[in-house]
Amino acid sequence: MARAFPGAYGLLDDAAVIGPVPGNELVVKTDTIVASVDFPPETAPDLVARKALRVNLSDLAAKGALPRAYLLDLVLPASVDERWIAEFASGLRHDQAEYGIHLIGGDLSSTPGPVTIAVCALGEAPIGSIVRRGGARPDDIIFVTGSIGDAALGLDALRGALTGLDDDSRRFLLDRYRLPQPRVALGPGLIGVATAAIDVSDGLIADLRHLCEVSRVDAIVEARSVPLSPAARQVIAANPERLATALTGGDDYEVLLTAPPDAAERLGALARSAATPITPIGRITRSLQQDASRVLVLDPGGRAIPLSAEGWTHFGQRNRQAGPPG
Amino acid sequence: MARAFPGAYGLLDDAAVIGPVPGNELVVKTDTIVASVDFPPETAPDLVARKALRVNLSDLAAKGALPRAYLLDLVLPASVDERWIAEFASGLRHDQAEYGIHLIGGDLSSTPGPVTIAVCALGEAPIGSIVRRGGARPDDIIFVTGSIGDAALGLDALRGALTGLDDDSRRFLLDRYRLPQPRVALGPGLIGVATAAIDVSDGLIADLRHLCEVSRVDAIVEARSVPLSPAARQVIAANPERLATALTGGDDYEVLLTAPPDAAERLGALARSAATPITPIGRITRSLQQDASRVLVLDPGGRAIPLSAEGWTHFGQRNRQAGPPG
Repeated sequence: MARAFPGAYGLLDDAAVIGPVPGNELVVKTDTIVASVDFPPETAPDLVARKALRVNLSDLAAKGALPRAYLLDLVLPASVDERWIAEFASGLRHDQAEYGIHLIGGDLSSTPGPVTIAVCALGEAPIGSIVRRGGARPDDIIFVTGSIGDAALGLDALRGALTGLDDDSRRFLLDRYRLPQPRVALGPGLIGVATAAIDVSDGLIADLRHLCEVSRVDAIVEARSVPLSPAARQVIAANPERLATALTGGDDYEVLLTAPPDAAERLGALARSAATPITPIGRITRSLQQDASRVLVLDPGGRAIPLSAEGWTHFGQRNRQAGPPG
Repeated sequence: MARAFPGAYGLLDDAAVIGPVPGNELVVKTDTIVASVDFPPETAPDLVARKALRVNLSDLAAKGALPRAYLLDLVLPASVDERWIAEFASGLRHDQAEYGIHLIGGDLSSTPGPVTIAVCALGEAPIGSIVRRGGARPDDIIFVTGSIGDAALGLDALRGALTGLDDDSRRFLLDRYRLPQPRVALGPGLIGVATAAIDVSDGLIADLRHLCEVSRVDAIVEARSVPLSPAARQVIAANPERLATALTGGDDYEVLLTAPPDAAERLGALARSAATPITPIGRITRSLQQDASRVLVLDPGGRAIPLSAEGWTHFGQRNRQAGPPG
């Protein structure tokens, strides 16, 4: 799998070498997924492999980096058989081809515990240029790619918690949960346009708060502007309280970004070239408190939506509170 | 912990950036350790942290790379408390200072399984210069750093399988098992001198065979030349069959290297400057078979030592056979 990357030495050595092209630097990110915590144990192995890779590619994309290579630590219980490993490898190969990335190193370990997969992804970007969390400024517009909430609603559907959903919509939401679509094609286009960015993995509002905390600003989001898929709209029409799930659920793997108002045209061009919607959902405001960032979500009448603690529950994570409901 | 490394952004962002100095490239290596597989679950947390780091630094050293930074994926069961984490962090800080390396990213996950720690270490070396596994040539001398077998005998001592050992020797062997001493100071000096190198983690003979396989050569090792610590000598004097444990046991984290006969003087200077013994233990020979490498271990009478299958058993690994016993 590593033949095309000279510095991987065909995975026959103890380490790999990688250097950025002149003027670039490497951008590195690691993330681990654990069976029964981050994915259901019965998930098809090729989807597990692709999710393990893609959650990392999503972070690189949000920083504006072009992915190049990855290392893989695969920790497997004795119950995993050769067929599982073959299907897992097939998933890796698929995504390596899809994203033009190369496996350059790794480790295989045994465990008495669950399947555990650590990926370290390496991308590159011009020196000093990556899009940070901390660059959002008052009056910047908040944008998000794609659609929000599908994965969280897909998880609910998987758990049998959603009824009255047509088959196509159900399948769409499940797919969005099972296989993230990291915005790799769009990422490098954020450099020089976005003032700050983060990938949406903990949930739209939680990740917006993370961005605001590092940027030391507040934010206002208009709930009706948050882009929803037709399937998510169908769910929310039947169960209005599911809007909170969409706004606060995790695993979207979209890019949340901020940019000054005059960047709208350039973002429109980027959205077209990457064939990915980029939707304005709110604006950055001056921080009202010294040591905390406040994210307000407004309903169409301009009232703050009180998002309950349950709204912040994320599969495998502690609850988070995104600020007082106003 | 990451303040001194600008590209880590204080661990407040989603990715870190790192670039080699001009003329260098990055050398990357990842390795995972799992409680009850790679270390006893009751091991002190600071030692667990240091072992997780050091097994990776050992690989970088064997390739001639200078370590610079690492990423850490920490996967913890609910039973791990804050004190454990504080001691673990203390171990990381200790080794960061000792080796001049920086934590630049990571991930914290929960698991229903055992403590699992994946480290991705990044070092650097001049472009195209790292010491590979595949460069050993017939007539090269085989060298090894430090002493061999201590860790495997230390594991035996920990398991209560060694008797008649004085307290100091027992403590020495246990320490050698518990805390690898990667040859970081020596590593960069191997470039331009060693034709091939590998770190000894699976066991001296198994790793020599790995090196020979990629180099497509055979090897002859003189057992009496293999450097043993006084403690290991004491064990083997009382139990001669423990010589096989020393030669084939794992976790030495010494560097096994090959170099032409005329490099002996430069290696002597390197040994002095790094304050690390480098001992010749055998020689590389032409491969006798097309598709297999043969490692012979000779006793003082020139007879091949028949190393039994048990000799190849490694904690958490399958047995390996290093070739027919002659």
